[in-house]
Amino acid sequence: MSSSRYEQGLAKLQQIDGQAGENVINSLRDIAPDFARYLIEFPFGDIYSRPGLDLRSREIAVVAALTALGNAAPQLKVHIEGALNVGVSRDEVVEVIMQMAVYAGFPAALNGLFAAKEVFAARPAACTP
Amino acid sequence: MSSSRYEQGLAKLQQIDGQAGENVINSLRDIAPDFARYLIEFPFGDIYSRPGLDLRSREIAVVAALTALGNAAPQLKVHIEGALNVGVSRDEVVEVIMQMAVYAGFPAALNGLFAAKEVFAARPAACTP
Amino acid sequence: MSSSRYEQGLAKLQQIDGQAGENVINSLRDIAPDFARYLIEFPFGDIYSRPGLDLRSREIAVVAALTALGNAAPQLKVHIEGALNVGVSRDEVVEVIMQMAVYAGFPAALNGLFAAKEVFAARPAACTP
Amino acid sequence: MSSSRYEQGLAKLQQIDGQAGENVINSLRDIAPDFARYLIEFPFGDIYSRPGLDLRSREIAVVAALTALGNAAPQLKVHIEGALNVGVSRDEVVEVIMQMAVYAGFPAALNGLFAAKEVFAARPAACTP
Amino acid sequence: MSSSRYEQGLAKLQQIDGQAGENVINSLRDIAPDFARYLIEFPFGDIYSRPGLDLRSREIAVVAALTALGNAAPQLKVHIEGALNVGVSRDEVVEVIMQMAVYAGFPAALNGLFAAKEVFAARPAACTP
Amino acid sequence: MSSSRYEQGLAKLQQIDGQAGENVINSLRDIAPDFARYLIEFPFGDIYSRPGLDLRSREIAVVAALTALGNAAPQLKVHIEGALNVGVSRDEVVEVIMQMAVYAGFPAALNGLFAAKEVFAARPAACTP
Repeated sequence: MSSSRYEQGLAKLQQIDGQAGENVINSLRDIAPDFARYLIEFPFGDIYSRPGLDLRSREIAVVAALTALGNAAPQLKVHIEGALNVGVSRDEVVEVIMQMAVYAGFPAALNGLFAAKEVFAARPAACTP
Repeated sequence: MSSSRYEQGLAKLQQIDGQAGENVINSLRDIAPDFARYLIEFPFGDIYSRPGLDLRSREIAVVAALTALGNAAPQLKVHIEGALNVGVSRDEVVEVIMQMAVYAGFPAALNGLFAAKEVFAARPAACTP
Repeated sequence: MSSSRYEQGLAKLQQIDGQAGENVINSLRDIAPDFARYLIEFPFGDIYSRPGLDLRSREIAVVAALTALGNAAPQLKVHIEGALNVGVSRDEVVEVIMQMAVYAGFPAALNGLFAAKEVFAARPAACTP
Repeated sequence: MSSSRYEQGLAKLQQIDGQAGENVINSLRDIAPDFARYLIEFPFGDIYSRPGLDLRSREIAVVAALTALGNAAPQLKVHIEGALNVGVSRDEVVEVIMQMAVYAGFPAALNGLFAAKEVFAARPAACTP
Repeated sequence: MSSSRYEQGLAKLQQIDGQAGENVINSLRDIAPDFARYLIEFPFGDIYSRPGLDLRSREIAVVAALTALGNAAPQLKVHIEGALNVGVSRDEVVEVIMQMAVYAGFPAALNGLFAAKEVFAARPAACTP
Repeated sequence: MSSSRYEQGLAKLQQIDGQAGENVINSLRDIAPDFARYLIEFPFGDIYSRPGLDLRSREIAVVAALTALGNAAPQLKVHIEGALNVGVSRDEVVEVIMQMAVYAGFPAALNGLFAAKEVFAARPAACTP
């Protein structure tokens, strides 16, 4: 029997975002517990569990989008971690963010690079290429 | 001797965006010819020519970003074409755009899907997977 | 036995968006049929079906948000219809959109008002207050 | 004789935003005192004083819009307070913000929920439902 | 005796936006006549009538902002006209828009340039430098 | 012989942004040194070095755009400094930012004014008008 959306989503969230994902879920418990459930079920249970695109490409897509939008720094940091967790290298993360200067301007790319710098500094170098 | 930024950029633009890219350059000739040159030199000559990230990943990043921003439909269509040109499949393009519902909302994803539908319809199916 | 998310969502979509909602679903069939399902299940089956906020308030919220974002005209029109369908008056729709001049600027409000004008013109006056 | 736009606006600002609104006005005194006047006169004297939409609906609209835009956290917090002040319940504020995941993505909704959490924590529970 | 905000605003609107501004006002008559009045009174009667910044600089500011936002094409066109009307040259308009590639990305600048191209084409060359 | 894009750009960056610009360049050294080079070469070497628009107008344009976008506070502060450095007065900076209330809403203008307040406070009054 296939696992439920919730169980699949939780496993996918842990695989991609690790501790950072769990922290987001915990921070919702006292304000909007149902939203924590939706976050697990729809993005991770439905979307990230689809077989049509590898996780590496998915994390490149989200780092690009959040850098370009430029208004969601905490989530960008979680997904820079996520990208590293699924095998995107530090150099590749930097390439994706730099490319966003073309599509969303230099300020968006600069703020993305500073977010990456923070994530890289907080993470043992041994964890990732 | 290595080719100039302009020559490298032009080659890269043709490789990625093909005729659609050339059309953009031509449409700038009578209003801002220098901007056509910058567009070739910086995004394509500098950024896309960097070896640190494959073109497939770069096109996934830009389709994601332009879908999320939701205010640049013509450029999104050019890069959906670009993604197909460098080996992203139609199904993968659709996956990237659907994923943007999570990061930029359902309207952004819907408008991205309708852009993809137009591009796919105008392009002989034989061209791409 | 309670109905499924899909069934609940489809009923809610029809109640709110009527024919316009059905058109969106149909337009997705050949490009991303799974996305049509997600659109029914998550926004309408999960969110709009929650008892904690009346549909009138929900449609006021979405007309406000899409006017402010200013990059999703087709979805704004669908939800101006939706607002009228759940009992928001034409005058109230206009008030919500005008108020967005304060939070997103006069151009966003102007484009929202022109969207409302189109929706009102296409809809028999008898349908709504 | 009807009161002036300024007087009406000031009364409306105090009714809706209370101390938080007054703080905004005070913070403008040394940099742009005329802007403090415009802020009272146009949004509050002109728009919020219009009879065509109740204040509850107006505050739902602005919480939705600022959550969706995602780039004005201080003003979002002021209006979460404002919503509570005019009779929107904490649960309804949370519903409006969660709904924005559909229209502006999960990061926008998450950041809106964290803003609400801060406002709720700083406010005596007895003040609001 | 100094003229009223409405009269001052109307004169300023005509000076800057000419026929294009009048068209906007007319298009609001049947949907939101009060909004036409606010548009004259606040932006033009209050803001543009302030002596602290010349109209040339004000129109450069608005062309820059609307190009960068990228979601208000009709208003951008009105203000490209406005810029020409108050003495900004066609070449200077193009420079401002090109510069926005740096702050909001190449797609925003491209769409701004195409808007300028349309405005320039529709306007007798003799009108402007 | 004319100086290179890099040299021209560096001189222009120092003229406009002074120490604040140099800090940005330095902060990129350990994360994306090539991006520091692009930042000097394209925005400053190519765009700001063009003769078609005076630096005063260019800085008015960028303060307007970054205020309107509302998602790049650090870069807005750098360019408020830049505006003062090239001869825009404090009062004119305030006028540009206030005007953005019309095009991007009052929250964007408020946050721009608070950024200006910080920059003005940190800068000896003697430096600028």
